[in-house]
Amino acid sequence: MRANRLREIWAGGGAAVNGWLTIPHAFAAETMAHQGWDSLTVDIQHGVVDYQAAVNMMIAISTTDTVPVVRVPWLEPGILMKALDGGAYGIICPMVNSGADAERLVKLTHYPPLGTRSFGPIRGLLYGGPDYPEKANDTVVVFAMIETREGLDNLEDILRVPGLDAVYIGPSDLSLALGCKPTFDEVDKPAAEAIDYILAKAKEHGKVAGIHNGTPEFARKRIEKGFQFVTIASDARLMAAGAKQVLHTVRA
Amino acid sequence: MRANRLREIWAGGGAAVNGWLTIPHAFAAETMAHQGWDSLTVDIQHGVVDYQAAVNMMIAISTTDTVPVVRVPWLEPGILMKALDGGAYGIICPMVNSGADAERLVKLTHYPPLGTRSFGPIRGLLYGGPDYPEKANDTVVVFAMIETREGLDNLEDILRVPGLDAVYIGPSDLSLALGCKPTFDEVDKPAAEAIDYILAKAKEHGKVAGIHNGTPEFARKRIEKGFQFVTIASDARLMAAGAKQVLHTVRA
Amino acid sequence: MRANRLREIWAGGGAAVNGWLTIPHAFAAETMAHQGWDSLTVDIQHGVVDYQAAVNMMIAISTTDTVPVVRVPWLEPGILMKALDGGAYGIICPMVNSGADAERLVKLTHYPPLGTRSFGPIRGLLYGGPDYPEKANDTVVVFAMIETREGLDNLEDILRVPGLDAVYIGPSDLSLALGCKPTFDEVDKPAAEAIDYILAKAKEHGKVAGIHNGTPEFARKRIEKGFQFVTIASDARLMAAGAKQVLHTVRA
Amino acid sequence: MRANRLREIWAGGGAAVNGWLTIPHAFAAETMAHQGWDSLTVDIQHGVVDYQAAVNMMIAISTTDTVPVVRVPWLEPGILMKALDGGAYGIICPMVNSGADAERLVKLTHYPPLGTRSFGPIRGLLYGGPDYPEKANDTVVVFAMIETREGLDNLEDILRVPGLDAVYIGPSDLSLALGCKPTFDEVDKPAAEAIDYILAKAKEHGKVAGIHNGTPEFARKRIEKGFQFVTIASDARLMAAGAKQVLHTVRA
Amino acid sequence: MRANRLREIWAGGGAAVNGWLTIPHAFAAETMAHQGWDSLTVDIQHGVVDYQAAVNMMIAISTTDTVPVVRVPWLEPGILMKALDGGAYGIICPMVNSGADAERLVKLTHYPPLGTRSFGPIRGLLYGGPDYPEKANDTVVVFAMIETREGLDNLEDILRVPGLDAVYIGPSDLSLALGCKPTFDEVDKPAAEAIDYILAKAKEHGKVAGIHNGTPEFARKRIEKGFQFVTIASDARLMAAGAKQVLHTVRA
Amino acid sequence: MRANRLREIWAGGGAAVNGWLTIPHAFAAETMAHQGWDSLTVDIQHGVVDYQAAVNMMIAISTTDTVPVVRVPWLEPGILMKALDGGAYGIICPMVNSGADAERLVKLTHYPPLGTRSFGPIRGLLYGGPDYPEKANDTVVVFAMIETREGLDNLEDILRVPGLDAVYIGPSDLSLALGCKPTFDEVDKPAAEAIDYILAKAKEHGKVAGIHNGTPEFARKRIEKGFQFVTIASDARLMAAGAKQVLHTVRA
Repeated sequence: MRANRLREIWAGGGAAVNGWLTIPHAFAAETMAHQGWDSLTVDIQHGVVDYQAAVNMMIAISTTDTVPVVRVPWLEPGILMKALDGGAYGIICPMVNSGADAERLVKLTHYPPLGTRSFGPIRGLLYGGPDYPEKANDTVVVFAMIETREGLDNLEDILRVPGLDAVYIGPSDLSLALGCKPTFDEVDKPAAEAIDYILAKAKEHGKVAGIHNGTPEFARKRIEKGFQFVTIASDARLMAAGAKQVLHTVRA
Repeated sequence: MRANRLREIWAGGGAAVNGWLTIPHAFAAETMAHQGWDSLTVDIQHGVVDYQAAVNMMIAISTTDTVPVVRVPWLEPGILMKALDGGAYGIICPMVNSGADAERLVKLTHYPPLGTRSFGPIRGLLYGGPDYPEKANDTVVVFAMIETREGLDNLEDILRVPGLDAVYIGPSDLSLALGCKPTFDEVDKPAAEAIDYILAKAKEHGKVAGIHNGTPEFARKRIEKGFQFVTIASDARLMAAGAKQVLHTVRA
Repeated sequence: MRANRLREIWAGGGAAVNGWLTIPHAFAAETMAHQGWDSLTVDIQHGVVDYQAAVNMMIAISTTDTVPVVRVPWLEPGILMKALDGGAYGIICPMVNSGADAERLVKLTHYPPLGTRSFGPIRGLLYGGPDYPEKANDTVVVFAMIETREGLDNLEDILRVPGLDAVYIGPSDLSLALGCKPTFDEVDKPAAEAIDYILAKAKEHGKVAGIHNGTPEFARKRIEKGFQFVTIASDARLMAAGAKQVLHTVRA
Repeated sequence: MRANRLREIWAGGGAAVNGWLTIPHAFAAETMAHQGWDSLTVDIQHGVVDYQAAVNMMIAISTTDTVPVVRVPWLEPGILMKALDGGAYGIICPMVNSGADAERLVKLTHYPPLGTRSFGPIRGLLYGGPDYPEKANDTVVVFAMIETREGLDNLEDILRVPGLDAVYIGPSDLSLALGCKPTFDEVDKPAAEAIDYILAKAKEHGKVAGIHNGTPEFARKRIEKGFQFVTIASDARLMAAGAKQVLHTVRA
Repeated sequence: MRANRLREIWAGGGAAVNGWLTIPHAFAAETMAHQGWDSLTVDIQHGVVDYQAAVNMMIAISTTDTVPVVRVPWLEPGILMKALDGGAYGIICPMVNSGADAERLVKLTHYPPLGTRSFGPIRGLLYGGPDYPEKANDTVVVFAMIETREGLDNLEDILRVPGLDAVYIGPSDLSLALGCKPTFDEVDKPAAEAIDYILAKAKEHGKVAGIHNGTPEFARKRIEKGFQFVTIASDARLMAAGAKQVLHTVRA
Repeated sequence: MRANRLREIWAGGGAAVNGWLTIPHAFAAETMAHQGWDSLTVDIQHGVVDYQAAVNMMIAISTTDTVPVVRVPWLEPGILMKALDGGAYGIICPMVNSGADAERLVKLTHYPPLGTRSFGPIRGLLYGGPDYPEKANDTVVVFAMIETREGLDNLEDILRVPGLDAVYIGPSDLSLALGCKPTFDEVDKPAAEAIDYILAKAKEHGKVAGIHNGTPEFARKRIEKGFQFVTIASDARLMAAGAKQVLHTVRA
């Protein structure tokens, strides 16, 4: 089975730089994949991307060595398994709020005996290779998003779940949940402390910690602090920011 | 009929700033349209965009005041008329090499008696309004691309054709045609002279001159020289350049 | 943030006339949007429309002042949030049968502190404007469908839930649930009484009442009775009925 | 090979009632096909429909006995052959202005020895059956549109071309070409005379005459006059007209 | 209402041969439908097919007499009802593990009074006919997949549920669940015994038993044993196996 | 620039085995690409594939080492250049009937100074690499189809054109053109002689000869005769043939 570069990077103690895809078209995804991201996450939760487009986007990413990851809209069996069957090598699942949620997530994303994932890795076989069935459990990585007060309270229960590889922080949602202003990077103090706490606990339990960032500069700081999976911007944001700057310059 | 902002800008002696769309999806087009471009050109010639996607993209542009323009792949009746029926308020036509080409272009893009455009402006009526049939001839703008030695030689014949509103220069193709290195902005001397010549002759004949640019800084120079329609970058280029910069910074 | 015309109409005591979209294409939606409906509802529950098409349809509606509404297939977190992130200014949710259902619906459709909606209003920002995050809770409207015996029994619990703006009645489903013949407009007596009861209770609790109708004549009667949101026909029904009539006339 | 109902109707001296499709989606086409039209024409010329959508629409029409017809954008080999390979049982070709045009049209739409149509009827075989290759030349029908002064002048040359089955009149375009107001049905006198002339000459040469109509009442008159193929309205027009009427009634 | 050929075959004691669709395009589905399968199952669970494509595929199947079946991704209300509204005449539901699951499945797929299916059979009316609402409950067939230890333990509770028509076995998933090697056809002994047990119990309770097979030869054996619904291969597998064989031969 | 495996195979005196794609979806193309074809041809001429789908299919092929080739519908500038910009490494052009046709084909598919291809290799750059502009002329291969009497008569004029790499024979069309029965493989004698003649002349002029085949056995014979590019079957045919065989076996 094709190795998962995320695991390789993490095994070497490194951090993966992850891009974010919200434009539901293969050509946009292919263009992004050619820029050199370690992984690209197809966002089925908050982008305007649905599953059919996500498959085309994963195909496009597969023209390169970039690792295809999917953020699913919810801890729901149907889409979790479809994302994996479509060839995702990483899953980011929102709203994991308890040990029970984390266990459910692991069960749905792993084949027996570890889990109850149903068998039929249609595109997984193409992307991963013929030994996908035997090796998928040890290859695909699964992130639980910690983004609520409840998730914070149950963090250690979540981190104790075998088969969960990583946690992922969306600073905006975490801030909102803690009564802070929703933003990336320079969050309010309670959110900042929560982020530090999640990172520390993840390390303690031998899990990878990942986080969304607004700027590459801040992402570097996150890496220095110990985050091993940092997301920056998104396809549409990069395009819009570039356009804004062009228009500003030409009209100055 | 909805007025054509390009005509309004030109009537005031101003220059329109045009963006370029190569990602075949409405959401990408809508995101670009919200950044404030005067017009956006859906490139059916060199992007990976085909007509069906172009229609969705024009719909997306129509959520804003940005003017929808289409570059057709070739001086071919079918696609010229379909682009107009789909609601394009501007047409950029490649490879106009003679007065006869320019006349054919004008005929195909205008209703009788000026031309022979066939009647059926399905989406034009939605975008333009119920008086589209009477006013389309005076509203839509048509650009002829001058990009060959032959086109240069016949430039004045082309510019003399009534109903042609503007010429458009792709510096890369023009450079190639003149044996120069294909590039935007700082082109080789023969290409630079040809660009100046086209601009001067266009002004002489009362036509607008437009040009593709690599950077906003150069676009400003073009405007100062007298160009009234300047294109900068494209959706995919902005995204890719932004991604490259992010990755460079985070990995520095 | 762009105002919600539905709220404006209701604030003035008026009734909104709502169209219904079941053809999964932007051009059909745009054509409908240009006819002058106050709002158009993209039906992801019973049409053959899925999310990706729904986004394109909302883009098409956004070329006009008509308000985009989505009927989701079920009270399920993923699709509720994706519909909102895609720019819906109204949500119609089927099968709200208890106060707990209504509370869950409100939580999932509102940002903290009122609810737990996850943050990432990708297209909402384009359609609504940059202050969408602060104002979305007070701008978007949420309808609970009352269509079962259980929903009727718990009606007041449902209506008491803060943040719920309106109830919506599908006379067919309500009729079926009460053992009556499934139809619009002239429903059997038990269904008719239930409709009157829902309207009266909604008014008592300061909520808007909406209803599906078979004919414009009946919709007027509903408005006179106090309904402030009336749906008539659908894109496909209008087309089919028109075709039937044409064929009848030409073959008579 | 599946028989062509248009030929059967014409053989019996009857007139076929044809609907018109401009919404590029299979579900809209299927809904129209279930209303009982003799044939449905997918308009690739003036609708916003491109080939890929046209194939899906022909598949949808094929769920019924309605005959699938395609209007191509132009007398161009690529699209003519693709439309046929996609299963069209009728072709309407715009802008046939001379005997040479008509001969070219016939050549491109028929297999040797009658023509030069290239071999590969991928979907034609599914729709027509395994003997499609032998029988297609005698089954598919081909219409030439007469819509210019030149076409009128060369009408008899056009009608003399063997293999051409019918002529088709778009009253709007014909009116425009003759300097009249573009409209259906009650056209100006020169256009009316031209229509009568085309019908008379078609009959004289044993060809079917078809025409576009604005209303079913007028279509009946056309049938009484001798037209054997009458088109009325279109999917989008029926929908829009229905919506307008509903809104007028409910707001009256 | 159009009769369900599956019911007719079963009523005659026969077995239906079912094909499997995993390529999300109408043309592939139409090609398969023309080969003579009794039914074709659009797999929304493990293929890369999502709902919008599934609708187009069901339209394509409807050009023939082959019965359209859908395997949904999960026992989830939204997709179950959308599949039915899209015209499915059969539903295969994964992971039915208890009598309660089976009851829920029956409720969601049947109109009152038998169930709680919501009313709006948009495409069902086109495919089935105008009396779809009255007859759907007795026409559509519903399969419960037995694929876990728990499902086996509760088999009789499941089979006792009125309105459930059949059970379906995926030998791979069942094998995995029983700690056996995941495969079709020649499964390990515990899985083989479980399959025999399910078949015997289904017959005892008057339900149809269906099963997935790797080869047509094995499918025949299953029929001889009493299975009345046998699936063989899939569109993509047939294509891939054919390609492999061609390449092997040409390169031998 | 990524090398063209077709050129490498030919340089070594070998023959490339080419598959054929007629199903307009990326997943079908990706599945085929994983079976080990040297090249895969997306057929925009006779399949039901249009450009937008062709781009997605080329992206899917690009996940493997298989070379993406496009058969265009006609010798028409727009689609030739769009196919190349979309990343095609080979072009098969139908109906090349004279030296002038071949010259036009070469001009349209090569950059100056060899040709007049317009500059904008959007996806070509992603697939080929940043030096695509300089190396495309020497990397991409161009086939002229010889399929008419006229083409045969002018064969040597065609073969003399510099920049043309290969000729391609569709035995069905060639047979039809020569008054023979349209078939692959065992064609009638005049067609067989024409095929031998084309092969011999191609070798004489240092061009590669390619041919369509019905069976792998016959393709081997063609290779032994000297053909260096052999196509066998197509995605849809392999699928249909496999399905037929399965149904025959299970029902035997």
